[in-house]
Amino acid sequence: MTLSNEEARGIAEAILDLKERACFCGRCFNITDSELCPVCRDPGRDASRICVVEEPSDLIVIENTRSYRGLYHVLLGTLSPLDGLTPERLKIRELLERVAQGGVEEVILATNPNTKGEATAQYLAQLLKPMNVHISRIAYGLPLGGDIEFADEVTLSKSLEGRREI
Amino acid sequence: MTLSNEEARGIAEAILDLKERACFCGRCFNITDSELCPVCRDPGRDASRICVVEEPSDLIVIENTRSYRGLYHVLLGTLSPLDGLTPERLKIRELLERVAQGGVEEVILATNPNTKGEATAQYLAQLLKPMNVHISRIAYGLPLGGDIEFADEVTLSKSLEGRREI
Repeated sequence: MTLSNEEARGIAEAILDLKERACFCGRCFNITDSELCPVCRDPGRDASRICVVEEPSDLIVIENTRSYRGLYHVLLGTLSPLDGLTPERLKIRELLERVAQGGVEEVILATNPNTKGEATAQYLAQLLKPMNVHISRIAYGLPLGGDIEFADEVTLSKSLEGRREI
Repeated sequence: MTLSNEEARGIAEAILDLKERACFCGRCFNITDSELCPVCRDPGRDASRICVVEEPSDLIVIENTRSYRGLYHVLLGTLSPLDGLTPERLKIRELLERVAQGGVEEVILATNPNTKGEATAQYLAQLLKPMNVHISRIAYGLPLGGDIEFADEVTLSKSLEGRREI
């Protein structure tokens, strides 16, 4: 109510404009306003790696780490058959087609570290296994700045199991 | 005030008894009431692995995971020179002596995943390097049940970096 009529109209137009122009990237299903998203258009990215995430918001947080230079594939959801999210509802077929086209050496499964995300990762791993690519899963472990004493048992056990040689 | 005199006396005696009998394990510096702690006494444990932790409480949480069958070494602190916690104040010399005695194949550095714990782990790794043992560090990564979207950037970047082949 504190907005002027003009400001309100500005916001309304911006929403309509966004709704009209925003679409999914034709290759990785990131949100974009052109045929391909900025990551897919960037010739400096390493096209031999595909990082599979559930949602465009996951892609954004991974981009913010600045530690990954490959491409992405957004599933637009996670497997959850009881909620009607069956494999056909996700962009899984499109992922397999991208890998089948060749040039991909590694598929990094970066679905969420919870039950549904883990089930989705295992399902994808099974489909990808015969396709002659390296398949990897992001690491479970202790978060930085944490304390062993307050870690839950499963995370601690994964952190021990996944220990790395110094 | 709700305790009877007898109950109060019971608790007081238990505390004095504990104070009198509790001591540090002669080998790993876990808390015990005999010369060696129950872990060091157990012949079923894998003596070729030593997991280095900061405090006896860390040992307890790792034991609770039931995923580790080796021995421990408790430093009784973490390096923090500004607080007077120099290497001589921790059980570091004792660790090096244990490794030097032979039979140890791997030292797992399970100090806390924060600045002091990491500094302590790096310091120990330097001392252990010439001793011909495998040195490993517990994995950084996403905690189970978490969500990529809410992970901090450094943890997420460590989780990507530490990804494991499926």
